[in-house]
Amino acid sequence: MERVITLAHGDGGELSYELVQEVFVKAFGNQKEAMFDSALLQIGSGKIAVSTDSFVVKPIFFPGGSIGKLAIAGTVNDLAVSGAKPLYLTCGFVLEEGFPIKDLKQIVTDMAAEANKAGITIVAGDTKVVERGSCDGVYINTTGIGLVTEELQPTFEAGDAVIVSGSIGDHGIAILAARGELGISTPVNSDCASLNTMIAGVTSETNQVRIMRDPTRGGLATTLVEIAEDFSLTIVLDEEAILVKDEVHGACDLLGFDPLYLANEGKVIIIVPAQEKECVLEVLHSFTEGKDAVCVGHIANTDKGQLLLQTPLGVKRPLHRLSGVMLPRIC
Amino acid sequence: MERVITLAHGDGGELSYELVQEVFVKAFGNQKEAMFDSALLQIGSGKIAVSTDSFVVKPIFFPGGSIGKLAIAGTVNDLAVSGAKPLYLTCGFVLEEGFPIKDLKQIVTDMAAEANKAGITIVAGDTKVVERGSCDGVYINTTGIGLVTEELQPTFEAGDAVIVSGSIGDHGIAILAARGELGISTPVNSDCASLNTMIAGVTSETNQVRIMRDPTRGGLATTLVEIAEDFSLTIVLDEEAILVKDEVHGACDLLGFDPLYLANEGKVIIIVPAQEKECVLEVLHSFTEGKDAVCVGHIANTDKGQLLLQTPLGVKRPLHRLSGVMLPRIC
Repeated sequence: MERVITLAHGDGGELSYELVQEVFVKAFGNQKEAMFDSALLQIGSGKIAVSTDSFVVKPIFFPGGSIGKLAIAGTVNDLAVSGAKPLYLTCGFVLEEGFPIKDLKQIVTDMAAEANKAGITIVAGDTKVVERGSCDGVYINTTGIGLVTEELQPTFEAGDAVIVSGSIGDHGIAILAARGELGISTPVNSDCASLNTMIAGVTSETNQVRIMRDPTRGGLATTLVEIAEDFSLTIVLDEEAILVKDEVHGACDLLGFDPLYLANEGKVIIIVPAQEKECVLEVLHSFTEGKDAVCVGHIANTDKGQLLLQTPLGVKRPLHRLSGVMLPRIC
Repeated sequence: MERVITLAHGDGGELSYELVQEVFVKAFGNQKEAMFDSALLQIGSGKIAVSTDSFVVKPIFFPGGSIGKLAIAGTVNDLAVSGAKPLYLTCGFVLEEGFPIKDLKQIVTDMAAEANKAGITIVAGDTKVVERGSCDGVYINTTGIGLVTEELQPTFEAGDAVIVSGSIGDHGIAILAARGELGISTPVNSDCASLNTMIAGVTSETNQVRIMRDPTRGGLATTLVEIAEDFSLTIVLDEEAILVKDEVHGACDLLGFDPLYLANEGKVIIIVPAQEKECVLEVLHSFTEGKDAVCVGHIANTDKGQLLLQTPLGVKRPLHRLSGVMLPRIC
């Protein structure tokens, strides 16, 4: 049987990873850079960070944001977590014939507002139109360029603290509820937000950040599995410490989702030495986007790549990449 | 009645221009940069060029190329005509559920081959999957970054020569024929090709290039109208000098198309002082992609923005942007 793309290839989990390995890394070279959506590049005497992301979220307007706001914040955050100051952004639109121009205006107004908030300049754009039925309204690609002022050095030690800037799963549940397909009407706003100012606050306070990542598709668990595998770390998550809003918890119970695997669009994971933990939390707490920041785990050792969930009963359960769960078009 | 996006908004002509003005420039600021798909940016002490393009060409495989080859060559050419050396490229894929993985592999193989030929490195990527029926197989965004080594100074003089690197309309007719909808089976290959090496050959031979552009969507006429309006130039095109292949001419006659408005994906327009004309043509002729390069017109004066077509009978007919012609998904 012919092998074809499935929705699970796009959910940021196990199959997404396999597709990147099998198709893209194989063709584009096995440089580590080609595997990530962000890369650090030498330009003349300086270094820049570049990140690209396509947005296909459904619906295009949702509580807490829109595809426009998300397209800016998502790329700004990818740059910021790589340790770069976001400077410039391009946007490419694929529009469906029949798409209302007033909706397009609202989307670009949201983009302009979020770009302004994040201090990034939209410098180039492109628009393509496809026939009715050939895309679902609008898809947006944004590619961002940032200046790397200080490169993070991901060298870890046992005892390092794993900090998350707030509650998890808000974006995933907000989108699912907004679709109205699931019979739930949870009053949860997406956490969609540009985090570059808050992240710059952290890196100006300490130069000992090991790594930062934004736990988007695949959620907190998948992102931490990737870090654990890339750097051969045993990361232990403390289930009780992880913040999940009651509404998100309720929706997850009802629908059978695990908040650890739900997308976030306004959260950052920061790993720092234990002695920097309180200082980083203090900085995060001074920002609206980080007021609920909390330490959710630690690095237990640095010889094996695995993520363990420590439950309230003391059991340590291994967690893997998101696998086979289908929440298409969450971002 | 609600105003909606039409296919003509995407054909690179009059309505595309109006949409950019009404929606994007208004929201993103009226900097000139926001109007083009390419921008020159300061990064630290250096200057980079950035260009973004989404590709929705139908069919995805066609004589002379594929969406993959086109996605690389198109962005490489946008960088090259801005006077930059293409260095890095990102790619964002939107894939339809059910898309054959072997086709995806062929596309990325084409991308890798063309990137290798153009000497550009693919540094970051992103993949999204949408449900069956929500996109037509695959759409690709590429965003390129180049190093600006020498900035072109677009100051023009009456008498400047307008050079085109070969025959026009090949890509447009190749795509239309490949669709098989028009009852023609013209044996024309798309001219789809990366031109950066040839362009670097020209700029290393003369530092007097006024401007370069690639006449893609909207064709030679629309691109020259844009240059004429942007810099208040009267450009006169010599109809007899313009090279149109017999097969393209035949298809145009049959279908009622004007080759001046058909897309090209492997041609460059170069405007230089009259005394540099022969030198530039000689360089172009030494490359396969430029072997049929020809001077197609000149700048008559520098006080009014207009494009005139001088016919063999001596009549000068004004040409405007592509308007109302619908050739969707040509690139």
